[in-house]
Amino acid sequence: MRELLVIGIGAGDPDQVTIQAVKAMNRADVFFVIGKGEEKRELVDLRATILAEHMDHEYRVVDIIDPPRNRTPSDYAGVVDDWHDRRAQLFEEKFAAEDGIGAILVWGDPSLYDSTLRIVERVLARGNLSFEYSVIPGVTSAQALAAQHRIVLNRVGEPVHITTGRRLREGLPDGVDTALVMLDAECSFTHIPGDQVQIWWGAYLGLPDEVLISGNLREVEDEIVRVRAELRERKGWIMDIYLIRR
Amino acid sequence: MRELLVIGIGAGDPDQVTIQAVKAMNRADVFFVIGKGEEKRELVDLRATILAEHMDHEYRVVDIIDPPRNRTPSDYAGVVDDWHDRRAQLFEEKFAAEDGIGAILVWGDPSLYDSTLRIVERVLARGNLSFEYSVIPGVTSAQALAAQHRIVLNRVGEPVHITTGRRLREGLPDGVDTALVMLDAECSFTHIPGDQVQIWWGAYLGLPDEVLISGNLREVEDEIVRVRAELRERKGWIMDIYLIRR
Ligand SMILES: C[S@@+](CC[C@H](N)C(=O)[O-])C[C@H]1O[C@@H](n2cnc3c(N)ncnc32)[C@H](O)[C@@H]1O
Ligand SMILES: C[S@@+](CC[C@H](N)C(=O)[O-])C[C@H]1O[C@@H](n2cnc3c(N)ncnc32)[C@H](O)[C@@H]1O
Repeated sequence: MRELLVIGIGAGDPDQVTIQAVKAMNRADVFFVIGKGEEKRELVDLRATILAEHMDHEYRVVDIIDPPRNRTPSDYAGVVDDWHDRRAQLFEEKFAAEDGIGAILVWGDPSLYDSTLRIVERVLARGNLSFEYSVIPGVTSAQALAAQHRIVLNRVGEPVHITTGRRLREGLPDGVDTALVMLDAECSFTHIPGDQVQIWWGAYLGLPDEVLISGNLREVEDEIVRVRAELRERKGWIMDIYLIRR
Repeated sequence: MRELLVIGIGAGDPDQVTIQAVKAMNRADVFFVIGKGEEKRELVDLRATILAEHMDHEYRVVDIIDPPRNRTPSDYAGVVDDWHDRRAQLFEEKFAAEDGIGAILVWGDPSLYDSTLRIVERVLARGNLSFEYSVIPGVTSAQALAAQHRIVLNRVGEPVHITTGRRLREGLPDGVDTALVMLDAECSFTHIPGDQVQIWWGAYLGLPDEVLISGNLREVEDEIVRVRAELRERKGWIMDIYLIRR
């Protein structure tokens, strides 16, 4: 493999792929598809649909099944680090077995809570392979959330804090009153005190099952917790994101 | 006008427009083009190029010349508020004079430091017009910056603070060590203390004049200040953005 393209494909809606992404896909000979086990099968399928729709030539698909990962570690950073090492080894093998131009389709944008670029850097740092690589940006789930609620993330001239559910439970830094929260498996918004907090929540954005709920946090939190549990139960997985503002 | 489409078109590269945006453009009968005076002429032209490239039917273009705005007010929020009111009145007039489906192309994504949605809400709040409207998300300049530097904005599991030059000069909140800075006319990065800070800077991202500089802040800050001044002088305007990490 002489070149690798890391391509952001947007966070759900197949039309949210950019023209640059479509052109990049069409330069690729082989796609590495990273599976995360059965529950995200639908997402892998969606990527296959995007490919089928936009490719105008034949291409190979190589599956990479992620090594298992401890999801509730105490030493979070350490466990993630070790997992990335195992992934890098696996990716190196798969890359080495291919020639031409490879591509990886990344959910949303590669720059936000995604490990693909770190793995690629690790593969290169191992020194066994060398290849060019470039990144094609995509629409993030933050942009998808804002668009569906028709909101601006920031107040005029003010900051936006992008964070995770885990971090939110530790409390927002002083002076931060707008936060966009991703990767929250535990409805951490219920831990935010006060009755002057607004929330704009969205699940499966851009997908047929999209759900939006917004309002005063204290008035809608129970509904979000209930709806989220029902959806997760019914589909076997959920992806949700929200903006909160004090 | 019975419907309005607010369409994110990406932050510079004409190929960074999404397929959803192209489809939305092609539903529109009339485009409202907001000019910000001569110095951003190039950006208005770029929008015209994007339109010309992707439209498959005839369309009208209505120019809206922004009312003048005090750029160095002491009462920042108040002045911006008054300016938005004057804009809303102007937009109402222009909307009222058209029929069919209108569209506004927004630089980057409409949810980040952009006033279009606030103006649309104000127009609707005035109660003289009523129309449906929807938002089509776009690739932001934050994503464009990260892609060109091939970086992930967040450290593993950690937050990213999106802020402005003005806010950065007031200091980052405690506990925030990664910030993405937009709207910085004054090289506020020079005010960040310490010699363990990294910066990834980019100007005119996606445009022919794109410039990237990265490295240890203390080692590259003078170069960025100099290059930025030269570029601004030569072209008459500049748009730049950066990520800093302690
Ligand atoms: C591993 S991160 C990847 C984010 C991705 N790189 C992006 O740019 O959006 C996954 C998280 O993104 C959010 N997310 C991604 N796609 C989503 C969607 N379609 N609907 C709701 N949330 C989504 C959720 O918070 C989820 O936990
Ligand atoms: C009024 S804000 C609009 C941001 C836009 N809505 C977005 O999603 O990127 C303008 C700021 O965005 C950043 N910006 C936008 N386009 C850029 C580009 N092509 N290169 C560098 N910075 C850019 C700069 O920080 C600039 O001051």
